[in-house]
Amino acid sequence: MAHPIPSRINLQGLHAGMEAAALDVLVATSLENFFYVTDAWLLSQRIIPERLCFALLARDREPGIMACYSEEAQLREESWITDLEIYLEHRESPMQALAQFIRGRYGATARIGIEKRFLASTYVEELAGLLPASVLLDGDPVFDTARAVKTDAEVARLTQAGLDTEQAILDTFRQTKAGHTEKEMADRLSAHVLRQGAESLWLTLAAGANTAFNHPSPSAKQLLAGEILRVDVGGVFDGYQSDVARTAVVGSASAEQRSVYRRLRECERETIAALRPGTKAGEIYLRAQQALADRDLTLTSQAIGHSLGIGLHEHPILHARNEAELLPGMVIDIEPAVKDSQGFLYHLEDLALVTEDEPVILTTLMNTEELFSLDAE
Amino acid sequence: MAHPIPSRINLQGLHAGMEAAALDVLVATSLENFFYVTDAWLLSQRIIPERLCFALLARDREPGIMACYSEEAQLREESWITDLEIYLEHRESPMQALAQFIRGRYGATARIGIEKRFLASTYVEELAGLLPASVLLDGDPVFDTARAVKTDAEVARLTQAGLDTEQAILDTFRQTKAGHTEKEMADRLSAHVLRQGAESLWLTLAAGANTAFNHPSPSAKQLLAGEILRVDVGGVFDGYQSDVARTAVVGSASAEQRSVYRRLRECERETIAALRPGTKAGEIYLRAQQALADRDLTLTSQAIGHSLGIGLHEHPILHARNEAELLPGMVIDIEPAVKDSQGFLYHLEDLALVTEDEPVILTTLMNTEELFSLDAE
Repeated sequence: MAHPIPSRINLQGLHAGMEAAALDVLVATSLENFFYVTDAWLLSQRIIPERLCFALLARDREPGIMACYSEEAQLREESWITDLEIYLEHRESPMQALAQFIRGRYGATARIGIEKRFLASTYVEELAGLLPASVLLDGDPVFDTARAVKTDAEVARLTQAGLDTEQAILDTFRQTKAGHTEKEMADRLSAHVLRQGAESLWLTLAAGANTAFNHPSPSAKQLLAGEILRVDVGGVFDGYQSDVARTAVVGSASAEQRSVYRRLRECERETIAALRPGTKAGEIYLRAQQALADRDLTLTSQAIGHSLGIGLHEHPILHARNEAELLPGMVIDIEPAVKDSQGFLYHLEDLALVTEDEPVILTTLMNTEELFSLDAE
Repeated sequence: MAHPIPSRINLQGLHAGMEAAALDVLVATSLENFFYVTDAWLLSQRIIPERLCFALLARDREPGIMACYSEEAQLREESWITDLEIYLEHRESPMQALAQFIRGRYGATARIGIEKRFLASTYVEELAGLLPASVLLDGDPVFDTARAVKTDAEVARLTQAGLDTEQAILDTFRQTKAGHTEKEMADRLSAHVLRQGAESLWLTLAAGANTAFNHPSPSAKQLLAGEILRVDVGGVFDGYQSDVARTAVVGSASAEQRSVYRRLRECERETIAALRPGTKAGEIYLRAQQALADRDLTLTSQAIGHSLGIGLHEHPILHARNEAELLPGMVIDIEPAVKDSQGFLYHLEDLALVTEDEPVILTTLMNTEELFSLDAE
């Protein structure tokens, strides 16, 4: 069955990047780039990393796939790329298969862009040995750049994924009260995220002192009245990530808790409003830091956010030293986190689309103006 | 808080491997090896791969950790290793921090074992440039060998993880009937796996023609009477994996379906019974292939199973060419899969412990003698 080229893929951007880097062939290997290029999301790439699969783009010929035999049926069903060769795992190495594919299609002296930030050194060394007359170049920037500006279809998926995740958080907040354990609440949240359509997910969820860990595992600890509760959760929906953080209080908030939360949220919105084309990623970080300092709050992290897409932390990351400029079409998570005088961590994370004009917040399902209050009993 | 060294860690095995390879220092970087060495399971290592953390073992001095600042609180809480240094993400690279740590503790001319099968080539190249007088060696075999033989504490965890996963499958089978969709059933299964205590999970679940994909994503397709249904699911329980596959029929089985299943199960048990110390991994594969052929069935995969532990596919993999010998204490998943005349795939996967004597099956909760029948209505 022949598929059309999915509209969500910015193939033109990939080809332009290849041209600028004078690459003859660009090889996608990671789950993210393989999915981006082929439209096929392979579970193997998440759970069995040594089962390598490759998608290859060339400037002046058809794209191709070299994959493990176990993925053939799915690739024929799901991908628009029809030049598919397979290798038998445990008989030949994936790199032997790749080298043969490259030699046959693109010659023995190609300039090859690979994912040096993903592909383990043992594989790169093997490939270099198998293709001694070729040059292995860093293909990561080509992927980063092309994927950083989202197509309309990608923005639609990311928006839906964000809203579905907020719905799961809201449903969970409404069903949770003091006395429940972190783990019970986390399981409920996971079930809701899956029911919203996610294929997989991760989450952190903690109450009270446990909020201070960066990625706390939900424990058997019960939620106590007066404690701050923090969730940060993401799922994969149709291949695209969600990543939303929300903070609540168990029962009634104290005056300090209401105040810390309100100031945090003001800073979050101020930071989001600064997401304008041409602004540098690093400026956004410094601006958030200043907005918090103006309200007697201290940022706890070295980045204030990151681009989101098929990957969780995509280019550009918003840290102080990043000179990358924002562009219309970037979809960016802004996530300040601050501590109160008890050491409880408050965290808010929303997704925004950079446009020619004002940024558009995409995660609009929950009203986050006031600290959410979980039932005390 | 000082922790004792966890009894589940085979530190002696790691040190012996380092000695045999004449390594001065062994660096754990992957989630699996970092957890194995430190006892700390970092979510970052699963979802933010560029946030590298390192655990270092040396033969004649204290072990150490070089980690990202965001992980410091968790590492101080969870790890028995107290020589902990942190780096600030986005200010210095993880490899600069690692190089400085190694130079300071072990000198500039160390023989360093790294995970070349995990660590991306860009990092390895950077480290080599930062430590020009040191030698970067392949540390993977040291980890593989030490981790392949499980301690009693590891066997206990893997056993519990397997039983908990079977319980989740059984509960799901009992609650599922014709007319439910694959995705509904998969969500129910996920919720059960989490409720049994898993922190994360993966699954494949499919009915009818969809069973033939290697890793099918659960779809909106309804289960129809007479169809074969296949699930393969795993979770992470206290850092250790489960991996169990079960096959069922929707409603009553046909004579062919009962027969294919019974023959498959006979072969699975025969293969498990062959797991004896000194036998080569490759012999087990060939034996399974023959056992199936004797019953007019054809193996659909290039491996008949794999070791299981913190990782999903651990050393040794049971494929035709693997000369590695089985040892007492190895915990191995055996998983034959075969097709019937309609093309439906039957899959059975159980966990067994290699002992000095007969192997011990660990996944004993479900009775798998006959094909499980889901309610037809």
